[in-house]
Amino acid sequence: MRRIFIKDLLAEEMTIAGTDAHHIMHVLRAKLGQKLIVVDAAQQIAETEICAFGTDHLTVKCLRRIEAATEAPIEVTLLQCLPKGDKMDFIVQKAVELGVSQIVPVVSANCVVKYDAAKRLARQKKWQKIAEEAAKQCGRTIQPAVLAVTNLKEVLENLEGSASFMCYEGAADEPLQDFLAKKQAKCFAVLIGPEGGFTPAEVALCQQHGVQTVTMGPRILRTETASLVALSIVLYEKGDLGGRSK
Amino acid sequence: MRRIFIKDLLAEEMTIAGTDAHHIMHVLRAKLGQKLIVVDAAQQIAETEICAFGTDHLTVKCLRRIEAATEAPIEVTLLQCLPKGDKMDFIVQKAVELGVSQIVPVVSANCVVKYDAAKRLARQKKWQKIAEEAAKQCGRTIQPAVLAVTNLKEVLENLEGSASFMCYEGAADEPLQDFLAKKQAKCFAVLIGPEGGFTPAEVALCQQHGVQTVTMGPRILRTETASLVALSIVLYEKGDLGGRSK
Repeated sequence: MRRIFIKDLLAEEMTIAGTDAHHIMHVLRAKLGQKLIVVDAAQQIAETEICAFGTDHLTVKCLRRIEAATEAPIEVTLLQCLPKGDKMDFIVQKAVELGVSQIVPVVSANCVVKYDAAKRLARQKKWQKIAEEAAKQCGRTIQPAVLAVTNLKEVLENLEGSASFMCYEGAADEPLQDFLAKKQAKCFAVLIGPEGGFTPAEVALCQQHGVQTVTMGPRILRTETASLVALSIVLYEKGDLGGRSK
Repeated sequence: MRRIFIKDLLAEEMTIAGTDAHHIMHVLRAKLGQKLIVVDAAQQIAETEICAFGTDHLTVKCLRRIEAATEAPIEVTLLQCLPKGDKMDFIVQKAVELGVSQIVPVVSANCVVKYDAAKRLARQKKWQKIAEEAAKQCGRTIQPAVLAVTNLKEVLENLEGSASFMCYEGAADEPLQDFLAKKQAKCFAVLIGPEGGFTPAEVALCQQHGVQTVTMGPRILRTETASLVALSIVLYEKGDLGGRSK
């Protein structure tokens, strides 16, 4: 069933406008009586059915509330240094399916792509849209935010409150599992480098800001693979994705 | 450093021919003295340097042996039902980075793509090539095999010796972590359905063949995401990808 996120709270009747209405009316060509899942601003979910069409909006009526806990028991922020090409599109989609809370696109020394201010904004909007589509598709009750493209230094200055870690290739570092066993935090932040990795100066700066360097095994993971593995494992260890709740 | 797999054992001097030689000579335009990593049929690794060029081959001499354990402590087979489009290319690449031992492309009732015998063979060859490239890139010492496209029934009849599980959406099944905690096997097999999932009859057949149905959490994962999460978690739990060795 199609899933719609609304900005208000559930009510007996609700109006849906904007791109969602356009999509339902003109792409899906929905008919009166068709059922839709509506998720409200407080993550409440209801099964609804279409009871009226306007020129650019439609009205649905609430049939029943649905109890569904699809969110992970922890919040994980992905701090993803900008990868080449359109890999970020892929990372955003998969991270949302895996259960990420928010995504910060990060600029670090070895990032190959350079965006000017206009392009940064355009990309952020595009990634936000991908995140919203993925949230609908996989049955989430929040729409994870993709924040503005931010420089590494600024990201590091705003990490407070999160247990943060980065995967640093080649270092004889702590296995990720040891780090996760020690950290009973509710908020985690995962920092993933670009294709060229981090410079030694960047690694030192991250460590000064409390980011723990950990290892994810002996093979060289591409940046997009590293993000997905790190997210899968932290969410799993903390009781999501088939891990036992702790 | 470029990584080459050879079919023989390491020797003081070795000849490299075929597509590897072509790639090194005409694409990378390597020069005399350039260093290459050579991995032999017994997973032994050496740093070598190019000491001579022929018309369609080159000769390298062994500089030193390298000790590198980049393989996971368990063997995992991915039984991947054929997904739509070119998603299988992506799954093969990522599965090899994650540490899979072999991949079996599986035909099940809800697979949308239908390949005739010629296309099956062509695809298998293409996926094998992707697997080999990924193995070189991420520093593995084996080249995981992509087997022939096989029907689900036949796959199930050949599972003996592996602890096998499938992710079955919606079932009130055992969390993946409980399953992994019980199974001290050295060989695992992960069965992942196509976009449309498995039919109830297929699930029953899988269970009859000893495949455990497990849950990977409350969200709906796309087929390619489910594969990567399942592989990440089983390898992690068994001491790879930053998991503690058991």
